[in-house]
Formats: sequence, structure tokens, C-alpha cells
Amino acid sequence: MKLKIKNFNWLAGRPVAVLNDETAKKMNVFVDDRIVISNSKKVYAVVDIFPKLVKKNQIGLSHELSKILQLKNRSLVEVGTSEMSSATLLIKKKLNGERLNKEELQHLISEIVHNNLTESEIAFFAASEKLNGMNFEEIINLIKAMAKTGARLKFKGKYIADKHCIGGIAGNRTTPIVVAICAAAGLTMPKTSSRAITSASGTADVIETISNVELSIKQITKIVNNTGACITWGGSLGLAPSDDKIIQVERLLNLDVEPQLLASIMSKKISAGSKYILIDIPYGKGAKKKNIIDAKKLGRKFKKIGKRFRLKLKIVYTDGSQPIGNGVGPVLEMLDILKVLQNEGPQDLKEKSLYLSAELLKLCRIKNAKKTAEEMLSSGKAYKKFKEIINTQNGSKNFNEKIKLLTLAKHKKIIRAKRSGRIIAISNKGINSLCRVLGTPETISAGVYLHKHVGKIKKGEPILTLYTESRKKRRDALKFIKEFKPIKIK
Amino acid sequence: MKLKIKNFNWLAGRPVAVLNDETAKKMNVFVDDRIVISNSKKVYAVVDIFPKLVKKNQIGLSHELSKILQLKNRSLVEVGTSEMSSATLLIKKKLNGERLNKEELQHLISEIVHNNLTESEIAFFAASEKLNGMNFEEIINLIKAMAKTGARLKFKGKYIADKHCIGGIAGNRTTPIVVAICAAAGLTMPKTSSRAITSASGTADVIETISNVELSIKQITKIVNNTGACITWGGSLGLAPSDDKIIQVERLLNLDVEPQLLASIMSKKISAGSKYILIDIPYGKGAKKKNIIDAKKLGRKFKKIGKRFRLKLKIVYTDGSQPIGNGVGPVLEMLDILKVLQNEGPQDLKEKSLYLSAELLKLCRIKNAKKTAEEMLSSGKAYKKFKEIINTQNGSKNFNEKIKLLTLAKHKKIIRAKRSGRIIAISNKGINSLCRVLGTPETISAGVYLHKHVGKIKKGEPILTLYTESRKKRRDALKFIKEFKPIKIK
Repeated sequence: MKLKIKNFNWLAGRPVAVLNDETAKKMNVFVDDRIVISNSKKVYAVVDIFPKLVKKNQIGLSHELSKILQLKNRSLVEVGTSEMSSATLLIKKKLNGERLNKEELQHLISEIVHNNLTESEIAFFAASEKLNGMNFEEIINLIKAMAKTGARLKFKGKYIADKHCIGGIAGNRTTPIVVAICAAAGLTMPKTSSRAITSASGTADVIETISNVELSIKQITKIVNNTGACITWGGSLGLAPSDDKIIQVERLLNLDVEPQLLASIMSKKISAGSKYILIDIPYGKGAKKKNIIDAKKLGRKFKKIGKRFRLKLKIVYTDGSQPIGNGVGPVLEMLDILKVLQNEGPQDLKEKSLYLSAELLKLCRIKNAKKTAEEMLSSGKAYKKFKEIINTQNGSKNFNEKIKLLTLAKHKKIIRAKRSGRIIAISNKGINSLCRVLGTPETISAGVYLHKHVGKIKKGEPILTLYTESRKKRRDALKFIKEFKPIKIK
Repeated sequence: MKLKIKNFNWLAGRPVAVLNDETAKKMNVFVDDRIVISNSKKVYAVVDIFPKLVKKNQIGLSHELSKILQLKNRSLVEVGTSEMSSATLLIKKKLNGERLNKEELQHLISEIVHNNLTESEIAFFAASEKLNGMNFEEIINLIKAMAKTGARLKFKGKYIADKHCIGGIAGNRTTPIVVAICAAAGLTMPKTSSRAITSASGTADVIETISNVELSIKQITKIVNNTGACITWGGSLGLAPSDDKIIQVERLLNLDVEPQLLASIMSKKISAGSKYILIDIPYGKGAKKKNIIDAKKLGRKFKKIGKRFRLKLKIVYTDGSQPIGNGVGPVLEMLDILKVLQNEGPQDLKEKSLYLSAELLKLCRIKNAKKTAEEMLSSGKAYKKFKEIINTQNGSKNFNEKIKLLTLAKHKKIIRAKRSGRIIAISNKGINSLCRVLGTPETISAGVYLHKHVGKIKKGEPILTLYTESRKKRRDALKFIKEFKPIKIK
């Protein structure tokens, strides 16, 4: 069918073509179906259907499509229904329990990156990975394919290092502190982090309270070459871009697909050019890994992969039974970080950050690693480095002003112990959900301040303070606490 | 976040809310995410993102949403990200290999019907069904849930009957003939059919060449009560509506999920009020079931389910090794049907239709079933009944005019045998794909006329004629034949 181009120039995040509902009916296509636009070459697009935006003989193009097609408004193109991507056959193969080889995985991942597979098709792939598993060779080939289809970072410096935590622990914001300490000690740390998916906040959300985190590859390269480190959002960089698409599907069910988790983390580290990598696997009740046996099982898989890619990998297993630090929520966590960098602040967050820093320095053959880490923190060198990184990311020496602007939400509520006793458990999931009820991560000033960790508590002592910008959310939060009891006292 | 309503009143097929890209970013939602709109009640919506259609403080509503919310333009509503549907936990449970009970399946299907699950979540469910299977009790409960969440048809008459074929055979358009014969013999046949998914045409596409097929439940009830039968499209009726959504996902991979196939067919028959059901399972090379053993395995499952629902079920196993009839494509198949109803036409299509009619009449305890079927056809009673049904569906006695308007596509090409020999195979899939290349089902006048079936052929005799409205498609079709050889001659 011949249709007239209408360029819309909006960024849809994928190549979207808008059709009039009558045109769609005539072509027998539905929302999210694929069509193929034939010009000098064939271009695939995802269908969206609107009656008023385009006329019967028109096809509206998102920026992504306009850029590829480079056609003026009213140009005629041939538009047809698209045959299935041949990668669907590979997904079917995997669903049938067969193994995929290197070329097949390369093709599959490339089709995901080029938007030739729908989210539902990716869901079938994720389900097949979960139910039929992947053997070691498949995981290695998956990592190669994921890294190959994306951008790569390259840095000067002998020790390009990274620190990664598999997540799940509320308030556990060690990354900015570890980066500051290790960069101050001479390591190169191009750290890219994620935003919150189901938690109260991600490292990128926390850093964003005082800094620009959406940087280009060119900017990051410059910043890291100047300061030795960066702490930015990884989402917009295009490192292993298939990963973002697969994660977006998995999070629909909060699905834990181990081969994909391994491939996701390792492909991003490889793309970022890191050679010395510390991986933190917290374990315990309420953590992703319930006990040390499961944690070590996962750790061994990381090690085996690291060896194959000739990376220096160190796995640490840490206590994940309760939240770390006092603040949970973007601004609250940033305040904790600043306190630790100024030699105050939550002791548990400080100790864990020092421990991780020492382990990473040791991995990079820094002598007296533990002492070096402590010295960087106590001397203020880490704090100075942190300031330098943030100022460079902001392109302006406004660190002190940015910090002054950090404010907490206006509605607060202190929850106190009704009787003396013992806090026997603080649920990571419960605290994260409570923060979401209070408005995080969208409302950066919202969240929870934990006055206490597991241990004794006296009647009348504060347990936690809630922060939110909305009275209704405060009420919802109190209801949530009553119903789900994120903190258990005996 | 408070947003202002903008009613768009377009039929999106699901409750779609359009957000400005900046609003979406602020809310941290993506295309196809769910949001919840809080008014006096909570309403779930699927997100679509457009920059120019709505402003920053607006939310655009599709007709489906406007209808539920009943709010004027510029009314303020609270819009938030939606928590996951609790049904995702059930999908996760099924992915983990556990069984779902009656209440769980009821909830899951109800959430699909109410658009609270995304296509990707449904894909995870379909994958779990395929990989972990479903036991008999699960299938029964799935059928109950699928039928319960949709509309029901009710008819007078003792013998409410249906005929169903599991599909896969090109040109096999027996349904209109069987309906005409059996209705003429006194059965009540509220027949609803599908449009083509991957084939050249569906029964609904074929009937649509001369008749209105998009009818409401009220209209169908009236037509069937007047004439004893109907032949319409089932898609718009809302019988077992979850099925359409699940099928839309499965067809992404052309996935064959047996529990879903069984539930799909049986829930629709139950919703349509049928009690006497004939199921045709073609088998053979190129059919969905490759041999009689696999065909009978499936047949036994149908029988067991039929027994549980107290239905009279008869399974027939027919030859599915090659196409049936001469025409493949909407108009071409209609011409075959009209010929058979007038006692001419393709012998194989006629014989199969008579056989199926006799089996269905026998199931309904009509004496001398075979003779009765033959008599209905040869006497012209079946043809008269067919005219009556079509005229009633069109609300006008225009049958003869409609038939006169049937025309074949203007570009045709006869392919002849280059030497004498034997046609050893005609691929159902190959002929269907060839028709799609020629433009079916969108171009109703396009398709293939098969002059021959498997058997001897002499040099120069026509094998098939191609029909298409486009020279380019004719070229493509010739290329397709060269490359895929849908007909094998030795």
C-alpha cells in the first residue's frame, strides 16, 4: 500500500509509524505489529494507531524513522506487513529446549537491538532462558553478542576498575563512596549506574540530586580522563543496549533470570572497558540470595565467566539481612553519603564502603589496601575527589551550592516505639515499598530515615521518620506500615 | 500527579492513555506501561506517549477510557504508576512449574480481559503453558474461566450444532457448505469464524466477499432464530474475549500451545451455546498433525473435555496432505463454494463437505444422515438456505447482485507443466504463503487457482493460475515459486 510520509520528529525510543485506524484495518495490522517501509532499502517499524493524527493515506514517522528514511513530507512509500523476524525461529528453538550457538545468539541480540522483535517476543525469549536454562557456552556467547552490539568505552590508566552490587538492599549506597576513595587512591573508575526499577532509588537517582548524570560517551571519556572517575546513569550510553530491552520485559514479572543477570552485568563491564571488578553479593533473609550457599553458587558462576574474559574478578559476600545506612530515598541517601565522606554518618555504611574499597584496591595490587582506603577517607582526599567529579560532571564548580539546595519533603512523621523491646527484623522489600508509597524515586525529597537497626529499643525512642510531599501519601504510608509491618519488634 | 482530561474518542481496542513525553519521563513510565487513573474509582490504562497530541499537564483518553470515566475535557484526575497486577504472581507461579487452581485461573483470565496484563505478561503465561504444560483439571478450569469472562449466546431449537476444523489446510472452505446443508436439514448452526491469521483467508474473509460479517450478538440471535444459522466473524462478539488476546501473542512466534488450543476452541463453543460439535483434525505431511497417531492423541483430549462439559462431540480425522478445492483466496474460495452448492465444482471439496455434514447430522440423531446430506445438496435446498442466510445477514435480498460483483484480480498468470510427469506434493504452507505474496487476504480478488491436485500431469497442462492486482506482486510470486517450490513435480 502506498502511503504519504508525515514526519513528526518526536523521540519515541523506537522506530514508530503512526497509521490511521482505517489504514490499519485495511492492512490488518494492530498496535505493536511490525510493518516494513520500502524505499531504497527496507526499514522495519512498530505500528501505532491514531485516527486524528494522520489521514487515511498517510504514515506518521517518529524521529528514529525520519532519520533513517530521510524523506520529505508527502513523499510516497510502499508500506507492507512485515514477515516475522527470522530471530523468532531462534526463540522458538530455545523454547523447544534446544541450544543456540554463537551466530544464532549474535543474530537474536542484534534483532533485539534493531527493534525487529516485539516486547512479547523478548518475553518468550526470557521465559525460555528461565525455564530451559543456558549452559556456560551459551552464556559466554550471549555476553559477547550483547557487548558487540553496543558502544564501547576506552580509557587511559593501568587499573580500570568497577564495583558492582547485585542489589536488593535498601539504603545500601556504597558506590559513590567507593568510587571517591578508589579514584583518590589512583584507580580509574568509569562508573555507570542504573535508576530505581523496583527499589526506593538507584545510584543514578541519588547522584542526580546534586549532579548531571545524563552524559554522552564523549563527555564521560573526558571526565574520566580528567578526574579518574565518573558516577553517571548508564541508560543513555548504549552500552550493551539489548540488556535494557530485556530488563524492561523481565521487570514486568520481577523475574529473576540467572543467565540474563550474569550476561547483563558482565556485558556492561566489558563494554565499559573495566578489567578489575569487585562484585558484592549480599545474602540473608530478605536479600536476593537467602543464604551463603546460594550466594556462593552465583559467585562461582561470575568467577568462571571472568576467567574466560581474562578479567580480574573478586567476589565478596556481605550481610544483606537488613537495610544499610539511615536514609532511604534519593536525597536522604545523598545526605548519608556526604556525612560518610566527611567522616561522620552511619557507621554501617562507612564500614561497608571502606571494606569494599580495600578489597578493590587489593585486587589492583595497591599495597596496604585497607590502610590506604582509611587514609583516603579520613584525610578528606576522597571527599575532595568526590567534589571534583561532581563539579566536572556539572561543568561548573557549584558543588557547595548544590548541597545547600538538598531539602527533605515537607510532611514528616516520626514513628516511635510503643514499648521497650528488640527490633528483630527490618525488611528490605518492606522499606523499599514504603518509600515508593511515600513517592520515591519521582519525589526525590521523599523517603524513610531509619533511626535504628536490628537491636534493642526503648519505649518512646524514634524508630523511623517518614518524609513525603503529600498528606495523602503520608496516610497511605501509615496504612502500609500497619498492614505490612516492615519492621518487626518483639 | 494531577492531569487534565482530553477525550479523544478513538477506538483503540484497549484503554489507552496518551501522555506527553515530558509527563511520561517525570512519572517514569514507558510505552505500554500501565497507569492508574483515580476518580471515584480506580481505572487502569495502557500508556502511549506523544509529544504533540497532548500538553504537559494533559492526559488523552481513548474511547474505551472516556466511556468508563465519563469526565469532561479539562477535568482534573489523579494519575499514578500502577502497581503490578496480582495476576503477575500467578504467571510467575506457573513459570515456576506450579499448578494453578480454579480461582487463580479465573483471576488471571479476568485480568487479561480487563486489560490489566500487558502483551508481554501474556507471553510469559503462554510460554509457561507451553513449557510446563497444564493438567486436565487446569485445562477444564481455564475453559470455564475463558467462557465465564465473556458473552454467551442462547438459541431456541433442539440441536444447536457446530463444526470446527483445527486448520492448516489451504482452500479447505467446507464450513459454509456444511452450515447450509445442516441448517437446511433442520439443525441450528450459530457459526462464528475467524479471519486469516497466517493463511490465505479465513472463513470470515471468504463470506465477507458477499455478506456483512460484523454483526452484534443481538443481530446474530435474530438471524439464527429466523433462518436456523449464521456464518459471521466471531472477533467482535466478545465470546471468550481472553482468547483473542492470547492468540494475538502466540501468533508472534506461530506458537502451538496445546492447552491453549483446546481451551480456545472449547470455550468458544460453550459460549456460543453449541451442544453437538464436530471437530475435524486433518493430518498428513504439511498439516498441523503430521500423522494419525498425533491426530488421535489430540482428538482424545477433545473428547475427554467434551465429556466433562456434557457435550456431544465427534472427532473426524481427514486427509490433510494437500490443499482442498481449486481456489485459494477470498473470492476464489467463494466461487468454489457457490459451485459446490450448485452441484458443480471441485469434487474433493464437495465430498469432504458431504462427509462432514453427514457426520454432524448423525451426531444429532438425524436418520439416514448421509442420504439426507446428499439430498439437501442435490435438491438445491442447501443453496436456498445459504442464500437465505446471506440475505438475512445483509438485511436485503441482494444475493444475486452480490454474486455478480465477484471479480478476480486483473493481473493473471498461468503456470504450465514444462514436461510430463507426476505432481508428488502440494504444500499447504507454500500455497498459503504464495497467496499472501499475491496480496490476500487484504486483496480479496487475489490468490491461486489450483488446476491439479497430486497426480499425473502432461507437458503444457496448466498447474496453477496466479491472480493479483499488482505487477510487482506477480513478479514477487514468480520469484517465490522458483525459490520455495510449493508444488513438487517428478
